[in-house]
Amino acid sequence: MRDFNQTTITEAVLDRFAATPDPRLREIMQSLTRHLHDFARDVQLTIPEWERAVGFLTRTGQMCDDKRQEFILLSDTLGLSMLIDAINHPTEEGATQTTVLGPFYVDNPPVRPDGADISGGEAGEPMWIDGQVTDAAGTPLAGSTVDVWQSDDDGYYDVQKPGAEADLRARFVTDAEGRFRLWSILPSAYPIPDDGPVGDMLKATGRHPWRPAHVHFMIAAEGFQTLVTHLFIDGDTYLDSDAVFGVKDSLIVAPVRQPAGEGPGGRRLDADWYRLDHRFGLSKPR
Amino acid sequence: MRDFNQTTITEAVLDRFAATPDPRLREIMQSLTRHLHDFARDVQLTIPEWERAVGFLTRTGQMCDDKRQEFILLSDTLGLSMLIDAINHPTEEGATQTTVLGPFYVDNPPVRPDGADISGGEAGEPMWIDGQVTDAAGTPLAGSTVDVWQSDDDGYYDVQKPGAEADLRARFVTDAEGRFRLWSILPSAYPIPDDGPVGDMLKATGRHPWRPAHVHFMIAAEGFQTLVTHLFIDGDTYLDSDAVFGVKDSLIVAPVRQPAGEGPGGRRLDADWYRLDHRFGLSKPR
Repeated sequence: MRDFNQTTITEAVLDRFAATPDPRLREIMQSLTRHLHDFARDVQLTIPEWERAVGFLTRTGQMCDDKRQEFILLSDTLGLSMLIDAINHPTEEGATQTTVLGPFYVDNPPVRPDGADISGGEAGEPMWIDGQVTDAAGTPLAGSTVDVWQSDDDGYYDVQKPGAEADLRARFVTDAEGRFRLWSILPSAYPIPDDGPVGDMLKATGRHPWRPAHVHFMIAAEGFQTLVTHLFIDGDTYLDSDAVFGVKDSLIVAPVRQPAGEGPGGRRLDADWYRLDHRFGLSKPR
Repeated sequence: MRDFNQTTITEAVLDRFAATPDPRLREIMQSLTRHLHDFARDVQLTIPEWERAVGFLTRTGQMCDDKRQEFILLSDTLGLSMLIDAINHPTEEGATQTTVLGPFYVDNPPVRPDGADISGGEAGEPMWIDGQVTDAAGTPLAGSTVDVWQSDDDGYYDVQKPGAEADLRARFVTDAEGRFRLWSILPSAYPIPDDGPVGDMLKATGRHPWRPAHVHFMIAAEGFQTLVTHLFIDGDTYLDSDAVFGVKDSLIVAPVRQPAGEGPGGRRLDADWYRLDHRFGLSKPR
């Protein structure tokens, strides 16, 4: 068969993948082919549209470097990342729900001691986080690693600022009671980076690029699924329209306002500050 | 709705695209979302698989430059390019069938006079092409531009060779009878560039990267659809397994062997050579 039409071309490609040695890869490539072709047929994609798509994907790849992952942003803004999350993290009773990793995680952040201030002197309203890591039943997990990262008061992560050192980003190790504590600042809502192809897509489709204020956590403990999640700040304007669809009700928290004066860790505060207590439950591997 | 599951996340993304001002872009983005999510759900894509996909797409974009278009190769090897071709070029009676553009076209190739030798001294068996451009009914189209490009005897295009000038690549303009003539060489089968992510995909899926020998043509005439096609050489090993699914029976030709001696255009040939006569029919715009 050489004269493929709109239907037979799909069968020809599926046949060509039939000899893939790894059965899982075969399944993925054949399903991808089927859905990709269905999409092109459904919209009867034109050649100029195909050319725009090739250009868009090329620019998306070329926007990526060690500080920027535009394909993750694309996956996030198409809701694919949260779908992958839903597929892979059915919620276990008592375990913390998961959400997107986002493009700003950095491997092996600096380890800081219990109670450290990770704000690096950034302006913002001080926030004390008193966290506990447990299993789904509430049993404390000592020696867990807790990676914390968040944006500054202007909505930028350290990696977005040229030459900046690790800032509002650190690793803590839980104590015998599964606890970790740190000083940070209240996070701010911010737009995802929109100076690239994904930003162009959002503009063209009338979508805003904002994410509600949140702090990221990645928590790993021996024998448990690594937890990738955020805590969102209650009352944020964008909780119902997160550009990356990452919000879950159970992840919305309300830090409690505290008066100026003596704070935790012997810190003297000149103004009001916030306190956030939170337990994180980890799931057993599936 | 904030607690999306595998089903509701898709509805949420479709809603988010509902305000896209351009109705065609809205249709495309919503269909893309539906099919992309269906794919991820169908195969229950894991997080490591998603990470591999992000890495693959990133490398694909970063492999592209002004001489290499890895996303077109990806589209070609997934049969998407030929599907787009089938969608957009229903065959008009008497018109030449179309096939993929391929990644080696260069805009505005050098214009050469009627009868020119485009081989640039490359080794290979000489081939005289005597072409005619007509409408679908056979009426000659004078003043059409005919871009011709092909690989050398080793299977490489000029743009794949560092520092090479335009070679086996030229533009001709048809005469009053719609004719154009040139000397070239018989094309060779060749593998598509397989030192990038697309090559990795072909290897992992047990597919070969070869294309059967062919000469590319892009023919433009005022008031007609631009024709993008190849002529394939009869008898080639890969006619039934073209890596990019580009072969159509009507595009297979058999250049006729001719004895050494006096050839067209006053050329003296020391060895046998080939002659290829072909009419190209152009379609009216749809």
